[in-house]
Amino acid sequence: MTNINVGIIGLGRLGKAHAENLAFNVPNCNLYAACSVVEAELLYAKEHLKVKKTYSVYEEMLADNNVDAVFIVSPSGLHCSQIQSAMKAGKHVFSEKPLGLDTQEIEETIDVINQYPDQIFMLGFMRRYDESYKYAKQMVDNGELGELTVVRSYSIDPSEGMESFVKFAGASFSGGLFADMSIHDIDLLRWFTNQEVNKVWALGKNAAYKELDEVGELETGAVMLQMQDNTMGIFVAGRNAQHGYHVETELIGTKGMLRIAQVPEKNLVTVMNNEGVVRPTSRNFPERFSQAFTDEAKAFINAIVTGVQPEIKANDGLQATKIAIACQKSYENNELVDVR
Amino acid sequence: MTNINVGIIGLGRLGKAHAENLAFNVPNCNLYAACSVVEAELLYAKEHLKVKKTYSVYEEMLADNNVDAVFIVSPSGLHCSQIQSAMKAGKHVFSEKPLGLDTQEIEETIDVINQYPDQIFMLGFMRRYDESYKYAKQMVDNGELGELTVVRSYSIDPSEGMESFVKFAGASFSGGLFADMSIHDIDLLRWFTNQEVNKVWALGKNAAYKELDEVGELETGAVMLQMQDNTMGIFVAGRNAQHGYHVETELIGTKGMLRIAQVPEKNLVTVMNNEGVVRPTSRNFPERFSQAFTDEAKAFINAIVTGVQPEIKANDGLQATKIAIACQKSYENNELVDVR
Amino acid sequence: MTNINVGIIGLGRLGKAHAENLAFNVPNCNLYAACSVVEAELLYAKEHLKVKKTYSVYEEMLADNNVDAVFIVSPSGLHCSQIQSAMKAGKHVFSEKPLGLDTQEIEETIDVINQYPDQIFMLGFMRRYDESYKYAKQMVDNGELGELTVVRSYSIDPSEGMESFVKFAGASFSGGLFADMSIHDIDLLRWFTNQEVNKVWALGKNAAYKELDEVGELETGAVMLQMQDNTMGIFVAGRNAQHGYHVETELIGTKGMLRIAQVPEKNLVTVMNNEGVVRPTSRNFPERFSQAFTDEAKAFINAIVTGVQPEIKANDGLQATKIAIACQKSYENNELVDVR
Amino acid sequence: MTNINVGIIGLGRLGKAHAENLAFNVPNCNLYAACSVVEAELLYAKEHLKVKKTYSVYEEMLADNNVDAVFIVSPSGLHCSQIQSAMKAGKHVFSEKPLGLDTQEIEETIDVINQYPDQIFMLGFMRRYDESYKYAKQMVDNGELGELTVVRSYSIDPSEGMESFVKFAGASFSGGLFADMSIHDIDLLRWFTNQEVNKVWALGKNAAYKELDEVGELETGAVMLQMQDNTMGIFVAGRNAQHGYHVETELIGTKGMLRIAQVPEKNLVTVMNNEGVVRPTSRNFPERFSQAFTDEAKAFINAIVTGVQPEIKANDGLQATKIAIACQKSYENNELVDVR
Repeated sequence: MTNINVGIIGLGRLGKAHAENLAFNVPNCNLYAACSVVEAELLYAKEHLKVKKTYSVYEEMLADNNVDAVFIVSPSGLHCSQIQSAMKAGKHVFSEKPLGLDTQEIEETIDVINQYPDQIFMLGFMRRYDESYKYAKQMVDNGELGELTVVRSYSIDPSEGMESFVKFAGASFSGGLFADMSIHDIDLLRWFTNQEVNKVWALGKNAAYKELDEVGELETGAVMLQMQDNTMGIFVAGRNAQHGYHVETELIGTKGMLRIAQVPEKNLVTVMNNEGVVRPTSRNFPERFSQAFTDEAKAFINAIVTGVQPEIKANDGLQATKIAIACQKSYENNELVDVR
Repeated sequence: MTNINVGIIGLGRLGKAHAENLAFNVPNCNLYAACSVVEAELLYAKEHLKVKKTYSVYEEMLADNNVDAVFIVSPSGLHCSQIQSAMKAGKHVFSEKPLGLDTQEIEETIDVINQYPDQIFMLGFMRRYDESYKYAKQMVDNGELGELTVVRSYSIDPSEGMESFVKFAGASFSGGLFADMSIHDIDLLRWFTNQEVNKVWALGKNAAYKELDEVGELETGAVMLQMQDNTMGIFVAGRNAQHGYHVETELIGTKGMLRIAQVPEKNLVTVMNNEGVVRPTSRNFPERFSQAFTDEAKAFINAIVTGVQPEIKANDGLQATKIAIACQKSYENNELVDVR
Repeated sequence: MTNINVGIIGLGRLGKAHAENLAFNVPNCNLYAACSVVEAELLYAKEHLKVKKTYSVYEEMLADNNVDAVFIVSPSGLHCSQIQSAMKAGKHVFSEKPLGLDTQEIEETIDVINQYPDQIFMLGFMRRYDESYKYAKQMVDNGELGELTVVRSYSIDPSEGMESFVKFAGASFSGGLFADMSIHDIDLLRWFTNQEVNKVWALGKNAAYKELDEVGELETGAVMLQMQDNTMGIFVAGRNAQHGYHVETELIGTKGMLRIAQVPEKNLVTVMNNEGVVRPTSRNFPERFSQAFTDEAKAFINAIVTGVQPEIKANDGLQATKIAIACQKSYENNELVDVR
Repeated sequence: MTNINVGIIGLGRLGKAHAENLAFNVPNCNLYAACSVVEAELLYAKEHLKVKKTYSVYEEMLADNNVDAVFIVSPSGLHCSQIQSAMKAGKHVFSEKPLGLDTQEIEETIDVINQYPDQIFMLGFMRRYDESYKYAKQMVDNGELGELTVVRSYSIDPSEGMESFVKFAGASFSGGLFADMSIHDIDLLRWFTNQEVNKVWALGKNAAYKELDEVGELETGAVMLQMQDNTMGIFVAGRNAQHGYHVETELIGTKGMLRIAQVPEKNLVTVMNNEGVVRPTSRNFPERFSQAFTDEAKAFINAIVTGVQPEIKANDGLQATKIAIACQKSYENNELVDVR
């Protein structure tokens, strides 16, 4: 078995996390090339990650015949075009979420992906690879919770990032709270229920950071979703969790309830001091999902080795983006929005 | 100081719990009379509770000059008229929730109540007297959570009661899931936020008990509420919690989050056996709220002794019923409903 | 049924807690008299508790024929003689733990108690009346944990009391850490296992408060106990728990483990703030055991009413004191001590 | 930088876990050779782990000049002699715990190790590499718990393994419960306190499996240890935890308490079903400590690459074995044993 040569595009915070996994923690994988417009990032890739080739032009990396697969960790707006050109260049493609920001462009991209059924395509909804989420999914699929009636899912970023978000919110639109934060919850809702969304209503409130009103961003939001079989979805999204990175999912079924990360415990330590009984918490997504990021990269490489397309399809990305856009529209107009 | 002579009307399951508190656990209180149309209940009151007088006709109990105060634990549809005649008879009045099922009748009742400012009137939103809820309210009022942005509250009855509910659902309409179960959550939402509700959207799903469709009842429902200052409310109500009586409230504020009864722990016992790590759970409301029921009765008697009207006003009952009705309407029409 | 007239001796912190229960929260009980050498305490008993009689001389209270039962909450060194004279005066007797500090005096007292089998005698090991401990005992007796192999029990007072303890430690000897703090754990060990102790080894360390060395007191101690059937007991006792009043018991059996108050949760609130996930804690014994104190008083009155001696016998007090003395001796000599 | 070529000896359950880490999850490491007397294990190493060389004779592997380092996962009785011959052959050496079963042989081995200061030697006390233990150690070293007074540590194997242990207990002596199970707790006690043990008393009880009496083995044991500065150690060891693999450590300090794995939570899932509130549990050591096993292997390779000896010294192995032997002796004679 030969190692798969991977070229990565994008070496920001998340890009570096992916690159280190591909370089050191994924069997049958060789991080062969890196592409970035930032010189320092290419230097880091050469010296620390020992990549053989560095590129500042994406198309040149695609033209390198030694590159078997491309790992896209660039800004969301570039995903669609980079996926398309990589597929056309004969590469296997992994793309970070979201698949794209515009549904028409996503649909075109799916058409391109479908033209190359022998090339692996995978989307980075990494929560599906988290041990706790996998355990829950297994219980659901085994019928241990009965039929699901409610799925509640929270994605709340830690307050630490709020200052800088407020500062830069005007300059670069995040896509809105729901596209930015709830996109994983949307994927989980569809994954756990095997149902599509019918209607949504989204609300929001700026309390500590009212200046967000001016740039159309939200500090905290909530969404209720009606699925086609009447299963209920509830999301809370935010950027101001004082206690850390609060990602939590609840499944209510006819035979039981289940919560994943009911509180965002960092480790197995319980401290008892003058504050009371304290559990330390996860502070950010790389800490919370480090195992999931490694395992999704392993799954991608394994899909290439075995030639079997992964479970997460491009359509999952399309649906997630559609729903996120509907949430944003519902919030802006304070009305119910039909998704389908 | 003389003991307050109390006459209770209604000696069902909840009535008995109240009656035992009034008889044995409330200082300065004498459970003097009991009224019921069920002979066995009056016998129980005489022998077990040692009441001096028993009545099968409510008006006769009101005519008894030794009765200082009336404790109403009758079916919801009777509350309004029984409150009115008790107030007119010069009695202090405690009424179980809900204040009534019809807003016009409630408004008339409030008019009557207001004509007797020297008589104590109190409504049985007992969760406000629960130690954990009081602790949370104190934290909110001290500003320890900052400004509230989301209040999530669950009221899910244990599965044990579902069989009999399904059986009798057709015969006697419960008022609907939201009036029956979420009424306490509505009160908590208003209590914690000091805000009124603007709009609601309610959803429901019958999964294990689809026969409820025919009688217009719900197994599980969810509500999202927009408050006038954009604070968000989220409710889940149900009748099918396998693990017990699941009453939980979450407060998200700009400075922290807080959960009351995140899981419905019955006591301080943790069992580790071949199931894993198990916390036993509360099975029903008398078990979960026994201290709160005692303390609200103490507060009622204390209000009479001190002559100070309690915090919970008749208007709280009116608003709660209005919102519950709006939830039901929203669910039936699958549309947003303006509450005000 | 006539109410039982109770006379209480001792109105310190714990005495007041008992007195309020007897006055207000115990059915069939009338707190009739109070005895104290402190004038202010008698005033409090008259005005707040509405007792009919107050006494500054214990023997005079015993001579009052209206007094049916005596509740002894005086300093430990007085328990034995006060029990003896009350029994001889024909009263039912409740005594706070410990039964006494000297085994010979305790044995004499037991002889006196045994001469009056028609009078109720009960010792205040109130943990046996705590809901969580009762739940655990039930599980053990049902065989749900199999055969017990280890019982671990902690009694650690909150740091708040340490300052004043250090200040007064020289003046009034507490009986030592094990007699003062572990006496309840000793009773629980015997209660859960139905076994007597064979050998003990006790250790201690003064770390934050080394001045305790001079007065022969301990900040923190640990004991290991061998029962006659080889079941193992482990105690930790202390006076310096930063997070509150830490009373915890663990039962390890062949079919499962069980913990009571694994962490000293104060209520059902979970706070998530910049400390992490925080559970508030019980700060002292009246808060932790308020229900147990009420229920043991109810059990005492009920024993009088029904004429059935309670489960906790004088011998339980004798054994507990014997074991506590053995622990202290083991610590002082750093050697194993045979208890029997 | 060249990869380090590692040869592993022993491919049982734990050996395989180590081998997979060395083969796939440790940067700068090449699992080059495997040695076993079991033909199937060598086949597995060749086919699954892709090792270049397999050996059935340990000395032949040591003679292979391409082998830079040896990873010893053989039966405990062989560790000392295999370490000695590997050191003499110029190899870096990682040995699983315990360093050995006989203190004299361990001391000779330490002499040999000390003759080769340029070769890395590391002992597999992997708990020191567990994220939760590292977090706790950091807190202790930062003084956040004040001065330690009590360290309690449990190691209880799951019941699943008990049947086969009972079956084979006579045939191959495990070294006794304390050497077999508490050895990690001993290391943790010394690591957290930086103190040596003064005296120990060990107890044991066979309840469900009394046939263990005949072969001198224990189902459950407890140890109390006095450190030289009077800090107290408490261990429970066992082989019969119904709920999984119970490894827990508690640190009591003058400023706070801390628990690691208070309950052996498997993941972040909480299930609420008809059992109550259930947390699934870790079932065995590979599951609980998979990250720690990987990280200790990374630390070993990193020590070789950087030439810096790791924190865990051979003396830690010597002390741990001495203490374990003292525990066993104390249990057998039911007496206090001086360790130093």
